[in-house]
Amino acid sequence: MEHLDVSSVILLLSITLLAAKIGGALAQYLGQPAVLGELMAGVVLGKSVLGYLHPEMEFIHLLAELGVIILLFEIGMETDIKKLLSVGGASSVTAIIGVVLPFSLGYGTCWLLGLENLVGIVVGASLTATSVGITARVLADLNQLHSSESRVIIGAAVLDDIIGLVILAVVTNLTQGNGVSVGSVSWITFAAFGFLIVTLVLGRFLVPPLVSLATRMNVPGTQTMVAIVVAFFLAWLADYCGSAMIIGAFAAGLLLRNSPQADKIEEGVADIGHFFVPLFFMTVGAAVDIRVLNPFTETGLSTLAIAAALSVVAIVGKLLAGFAPFWFRGNKMVIGVGMIPRGEVGLIFAQMGLATAVFDERTFSAVAIMVMVTTFVAPVWLRLLLPRNPKSDSPEPVIGIADLVNENG
Amino acid sequence: MEHLDVSSVILLLSITLLAAKIGGALAQYLGQPAVLGELMAGVVLGKSVLGYLHPEMEFIHLLAELGVIILLFEIGMETDIKKLLSVGGASSVTAIIGVVLPFSLGYGTCWLLGLENLVGIVVGASLTATSVGITARVLADLNQLHSSESRVIIGAAVLDDIIGLVILAVVTNLTQGNGVSVGSVSWITFAAFGFLIVTLVLGRFLVPPLVSLATRMNVPGTQTMVAIVVAFFLAWLADYCGSAMIIGAFAAGLLLRNSPQADKIEEGVADIGHFFVPLFFMTVGAAVDIRVLNPFTETGLSTLAIAAALSVVAIVGKLLAGFAPFWFRGNKMVIGVGMIPRGEVGLIFAQMGLATAVFDERTFSAVAIMVMVTTFVAPVWLRLLLPRNPKSDSPEPVIGIADLVNENG
Repeated sequence: MEHLDVSSVILLLSITLLAAKIGGALAQYLGQPAVLGELMAGVVLGKSVLGYLHPEMEFIHLLAELGVIILLFEIGMETDIKKLLSVGGASSVTAIIGVVLPFSLGYGTCWLLGLENLVGIVVGASLTATSVGITARVLADLNQLHSSESRVIIGAAVLDDIIGLVILAVVTNLTQGNGVSVGSVSWITFAAFGFLIVTLVLGRFLVPPLVSLATRMNVPGTQTMVAIVVAFFLAWLADYCGSAMIIGAFAAGLLLRNSPQADKIEEGVADIGHFFVPLFFMTVGAAVDIRVLNPFTETGLSTLAIAAALSVVAIVGKLLAGFAPFWFRGNKMVIGVGMIPRGEVGLIFAQMGLATAVFDERTFSAVAIMVMVTTFVAPVWLRLLLPRNPKSDSPEPVIGIADLVNENG
Repeated sequence: MEHLDVSSVILLLSITLLAAKIGGALAQYLGQPAVLGELMAGVVLGKSVLGYLHPEMEFIHLLAELGVIILLFEIGMETDIKKLLSVGGASSVTAIIGVVLPFSLGYGTCWLLGLENLVGIVVGASLTATSVGITARVLADLNQLHSSESRVIIGAAVLDDIIGLVILAVVTNLTQGNGVSVGSVSWITFAAFGFLIVTLVLGRFLVPPLVSLATRMNVPGTQTMVAIVVAFFLAWLADYCGSAMIIGAFAAGLLLRNSPQADKIEEGVADIGHFFVPLFFMTVGAAVDIRVLNPFTETGLSTLAIAAALSVVAIVGKLLAGFAPFWFRGNKMVIGVGMIPRGEVGLIFAQMGLATAVFDERTFSAVAIMVMVTTFVAPVWLRLLLPRNPKSDSPEPVIGIADLVNENG
């Protein structure tokens, strides 16, 4: 199934995209965010049920990765950096507590279960990183992307991704049996944060002339494609500098937000996003194997027990982190719930644990289920906490993903 | 180079898409169609010069194929089937003469050069099929897609693709040393034409309710994505039924053109096309190796001589075909020149010839150069024959690729 011909690819894409749209429409009909329906459609097409959509296929995997890059670019374009910095204190505290607490609780749970030290460290690490994609899509689906709670969540999730990279580097060294030097950790930390700062400072001078030049070219779609080029290039540069691709894409969105062509770019990128972004959520759903949850087998039952313990820890850890910025005047519960979903980073830790034989199949499945539970719980819970705004409460008339939700309404 | 990680893919895409836009802008600045610049940018990034863009990489190849499917869908949406049928006679004669004449001339040339019978047949076959993509993009770039000459060209190119499929099946059997039965040829011909007719008849009843249903779903981008799903699905179905994928995509465009949501769909698909379509033309350019043309080597010189002979035959054959519908009152020269470009089908024959050892390297290169020459000659020649329309002369206010060319003008 690794290599595909054009004919199977277009059939696969047409079925997958149709399932995404049907899932999204059903979820909205039931009052849930569309992204939940796309995840469920992924579960149905994926390993658990039909076994048709294989997220490990190179082509599908790459399209899904382009999807999450485009999504973070769109979120960057929706994010006002001044407003993001105005809640910087709350974001930082939420991010730090949201890393320390889940890690400690996860490590403690493993210790109580009598698991090895290294297993506890990798499990703890897998509990740290929030998947910003899921929450941001939910907030966009509910037209809530411009609230102050959303800004705290997105700021914290971005910081949290940077911290996650540092932890990933440390844990990779540990699982390979290597020591960890203070020097290498400092360098990774510096690279991860430094990239964002340098890009945002230099980009303010370099990106506007590029977009203006693109506007003067008399070729259709040039502005949108130059924006995509900037997003992909900064995503690559971020990765190259030791930061995360989605941080680069997010930075590109922040930089292009203030260009005079922002509205046109957002519309064009949204159309391209409608193709790529659902493929990301479909593959997240397809990677889940709900069959390991079967309580009528002995392994199934003990996996379920560990998974349940880790899920509780995962939810409680991030919820408390949401309440950590005690001075913040807003709905702290929304922040906590918004930080709950773990996604690709959690799964990366789980796969690393399995590949290096630190995890057995049971621990791997338990971590994978924790990721799944947090991913599915957060959209439903956020929906209960938040009304669906009829219109974006952005002060500027920005046409973005939040507004487009209601385009047919 | 076959397997790619996400990081190399996003760098490759950002460089390729940037090069496409720069090439397109330069071509327009020089008064040429943008597609010529994209082809040239592909030559620069590809085998001939930098060796960076490898069109045989699975991911790039698949994206490029999605590009040509989306392009033919867009052309279908721009095409009024009634007007297409009104010039059906002229199209049919142009298509048939445009297959018979180049085949005979190519076969004759090989006979004069003392080449084997089977070589002559494969060379002749490689001269038959017009690449509708190149000409249609040129016509769109010049806002000429709605002229009667354009309708004759597009109708003839579609017929020509169907005939090409039949020839491909026959030649495949011959190169594999098998005989060809009248029954199998009839079945292929029936399947190729039958698909188009059945789809257009059934689709008139099935597609409009599907699009209306999509419109009622309150999820952003649903109409565009349902259109893409229909295009991909019909492209797959066409291939499955023994017709060509691009015929299926073209049929999908014809079917969706008359839906009340056509304008919205065209806008959304155009944005997605801006991502995928240039990748097709870039890979066509990248596949060309201009180094085989070096006249200072002996092989280079004899390759050049055969290539020159085949190129003349390729151009003359299609030019005369353009003049074949003698009753057509319009610029017959435009039709002839519009039929000149050979593309992927010509290269498929060349590669088949090489793989089955019917062709040696020299014949293969000569056919590849013929494809290249016809592809580069047609845009320049068409530009000399046709003015660039300031506005589309479509009677309806359709926002399509033709109009979008001037969006920044």
